[in-house]
Amino acid sequence: MSAVKTIGIAGTGVIGAGWAARFMFRGLDVVAFDPAPDAETRMREAIENAWPAMQKLTDGPEARPGTLTFASSASEMAAQADFVQEAAPEREDLKTALFKKIDAAAKPDVIIASSSSGFLPTNLQSQCKHPERVIIGHPFNPVYLLPLVETVPGEKTAPEILDRAGAFYERMGMQVLRLHKEIEGYVCDRLQEAMWREALHVLNKNIATTGEIDDAIVYSAGLRWAIMGSFMTYHLAGGDGGMRHFISQFDPSMELPWTDLNFPKWSDELERKLVEGCEEQAGDIPVHKWAAKRDEVLVDMMRVLRQHDIGAGTVLARDEQLAFAAHDFAKWTPDAAITGPLELYNCTVRPQWVDYNGHMSESYYLWAFGEATDALFRYIGIDEAYRAGGHSFYTVESHINYLREASSGEPLHFTTQVLTIDEKRLHLFHTMHHGQSGDVLATTEQMLLHVDSNASRAVPILRDVEEALQAIALKHADLPRPEQVGRVIGA
Amino acid sequence: MSAVKTIGIAGTGVIGAGWAARFMFRGLDVVAFDPAPDAETRMREAIENAWPAMQKLTDGPEARPGTLTFASSASEMAAQADFVQEAAPEREDLKTALFKKIDAAAKPDVIIASSSSGFLPTNLQSQCKHPERVIIGHPFNPVYLLPLVETVPGEKTAPEILDRAGAFYERMGMQVLRLHKEIEGYVCDRLQEAMWREALHVLNKNIATTGEIDDAIVYSAGLRWAIMGSFMTYHLAGGDGGMRHFISQFDPSMELPWTDLNFPKWSDELERKLVEGCEEQAGDIPVHKWAAKRDEVLVDMMRVLRQHDIGAGTVLARDEQLAFAAHDFAKWTPDAAITGPLELYNCTVRPQWVDYNGHMSESYYLWAFGEATDALFRYIGIDEAYRAGGHSFYTVESHINYLREASSGEPLHFTTQVLTIDEKRLHLFHTMHHGQSGDVLATTEQMLLHVDSNASRAVPILRDVEEALQAIALKHADLPRPEQVGRVIGA
Repeated sequence: MSAVKTIGIAGTGVIGAGWAARFMFRGLDVVAFDPAPDAETRMREAIENAWPAMQKLTDGPEARPGTLTFASSASEMAAQADFVQEAAPEREDLKTALFKKIDAAAKPDVIIASSSSGFLPTNLQSQCKHPERVIIGHPFNPVYLLPLVETVPGEKTAPEILDRAGAFYERMGMQVLRLHKEIEGYVCDRLQEAMWREALHVLNKNIATTGEIDDAIVYSAGLRWAIMGSFMTYHLAGGDGGMRHFISQFDPSMELPWTDLNFPKWSDELERKLVEGCEEQAGDIPVHKWAAKRDEVLVDMMRVLRQHDIGAGTVLARDEQLAFAAHDFAKWTPDAAITGPLELYNCTVRPQWVDYNGHMSESYYLWAFGEATDALFRYIGIDEAYRAGGHSFYTVESHINYLREASSGEPLHFTTQVLTIDEKRLHLFHTMHHGQSGDVLATTEQMLLHVDSNASRAVPILRDVEEALQAIALKHADLPRPEQVGRVIGA
Repeated sequence: MSAVKTIGIAGTGVIGAGWAARFMFRGLDVVAFDPAPDAETRMREAIENAWPAMQKLTDGPEARPGTLTFASSASEMAAQADFVQEAAPEREDLKTALFKKIDAAAKPDVIIASSSSGFLPTNLQSQCKHPERVIIGHPFNPVYLLPLVETVPGEKTAPEILDRAGAFYERMGMQVLRLHKEIEGYVCDRLQEAMWREALHVLNKNIATTGEIDDAIVYSAGLRWAIMGSFMTYHLAGGDGGMRHFISQFDPSMELPWTDLNFPKWSDELERKLVEGCEEQAGDIPVHKWAAKRDEVLVDMMRVLRQHDIGAGTVLARDEQLAFAAHDFAKWTPDAAITGPLELYNCTVRPQWVDYNGHMSESYYLWAFGEATDALFRYIGIDEAYRAGGHSFYTVESHINYLREASSGEPLHFTTQVLTIDEKRLHLFHTMHHGQSGDVLATTEQMLLHVDSNASRAVPILRDVEEALQAIALKHADLPRPEQVGRVIGA
């Protein structure tokens, strides 16, 4: 048995092209076959579209990409392959006939895996001379991103083939769910299919539209399912008693008509598998710690969704806008009493700001200083309207001194000193303090240039903002000059 | 009708406390009632646990937190409330009796909302004198994070009550799914319940364990459900033909036994609602653009999950480790030919590095420079083992010059010059170039201190690494000194 270097792919639609992208990104060559006339053009286009997403996903070094060639028949493809991944249309007769051809042409130790969403491998392997190397290797769209692959043996599949296929898929960056017994739809599609059919029932009963039914998932349960399935979700809903408590609490509702699908007949055996299974999943970690972990992940996921203005992230953005609108921010006025550095911004160190040493990463010091600058902008009247008018400050130079470390959750307090201000430039100094002890954690001296952001060139600061900055600078001229101002590194 | 300032909450378990946290975080006062002896202690603890997650979620300014007081009866609670949210145990008789009490004590225009997961509001309002103000307001755990609330009217509910309740929940940062017709389980729980019952069938048939069944969701469909429901998922699976094509393609599988739940009886009317609903959801955006958006969000979600070492993120981390292990990184050797600055790191500008102006944010320049430093570390032999031995370099000072902007997707190329090296300090200079034009985008001069990371104090650089750095510094002494070295801001 030789190392897997060349993958044969039969069928080059969304799934076949997705597989090819995943394999080629990891340096394997692909030989593809598809009888459609425009198959090659479409497949190359799909792989090209998938590539940047795979690049963005990983921080690892990139392998030299594998090559893509096209074969003129399934047999020619199979003869060249060290591993065959079938991704033909979802028709059992078609797939069974295709497996017969691939099996006849492939070296006898080459694994032949079907991407079928639900057919029994026993049927697919039924016409093969070497049925023992036929399995299901069921991926999920987009195949180049989602890690799950379900492997399923038919009656004649050799167990060592599942071992080899599992090891191969893991090298391809996947998570292998190895079934020991075949069933139509395998596991994931049975779950998806139940929800899909129930969604159709709800639609059919005129309870809600497709958009409303999708919303019911996207803004609630869907966020949890990205990190835990039904069993762990309900284990957590049971509080410290977990699934055992959940069952006792919800026992009556099991008989309620809350879906068109009935419960399986309850038995002690089922209850044992359910409770013991959840307890094994949870391991030594008590439910309240799982809940805290879930919250941490949900928070960061929702923040990512906000960046993309989608689903729960859009709701979050709207919520923040309401909070900003309702908040009474300090605003500079000509009679503002300025007796020391400005104190306009506080925050806490976020978990995602912390590096492998458990300390706030250097780039996030700068991120937080940027927030302090935004707070100064709000104070002097640079708001959305100012920016929408095409004016903005760009930082052209920053000097940072890192004095002490900060850990996740610690409170930060910022003070800001305006050093000088001229027609187009703002020279300022921020100090980051520990919010409780007041210790100085870091400082930054920065030069900002006022620009016309459409033309990307320096232009004079607008009058009201300049007036505010001049007035603050005049008061701040009386303050001691921070020792870090004007520093030369290593001097 | 007065402004809502005080919320009455009946039942202070996971759901009631979650509601209280959401309301108090937004400045509303809560009056709670729960007959359990330790209710107040537990509720205060739950709110305290929820608080940091809410703080981390938002970038908006925080309101002054609302207060929490306890009433000694449901009537006393209801009499003080401008809005009542019931969250008692899920028993219909108990809830119906409780609604009767609350209704008798509350001002007649006060909305009374039940957190029930599935009971019919017509039943809950049946004993009330003012049934028109009774609705379902069904939230999802954790209530202080997940935005969905389903509002459902009973037969006697007044429509304007749903308007008012919807506006209130939106002010509480929620997404309102307003049903116009009651049904057991409403929408979301019917979908969840179908999947849960199917999961129990799979468990009962000994196909997979609870952990495996959960894995089937977490590593695949669950990631998608955080951003799109079943309908949009399958609309995208239909390619540019959307749901219309998807149905024609999967028509045969609709009859397949892929779950224990049957399809609703197919009709032209159902098909029309399905296809037109999906097309309305997709709007003017073609399927391939939706797919690109889905990919962008999936990538960023998976990167967040990697930070938390959970689900698909754990698979991604393992995949990256494999890539690092397989990659042939340049390593310094005593006979390395060093004729110019080191060229050890390239990357592309990630979408999440870009600010509202469409340009790479200042803090991410520093982040990328940090990656270039890590590449230098790998080159000179500072690896996981070195760090595990308790040695590391900390940056103590950075000076950055921003020369040009960079946009999402642009390639970056870094060059690195070692300026000086002494027993404990490394003085270096990175230049960030555009990967194609070679234009200089930014520079940084940095001073790094070698530390014992357990004791957090400076210690001498270990011999092999020092040897490599000295050899590089000796060669780099012949290079021209970059003009940005030793700069004073504003000088």
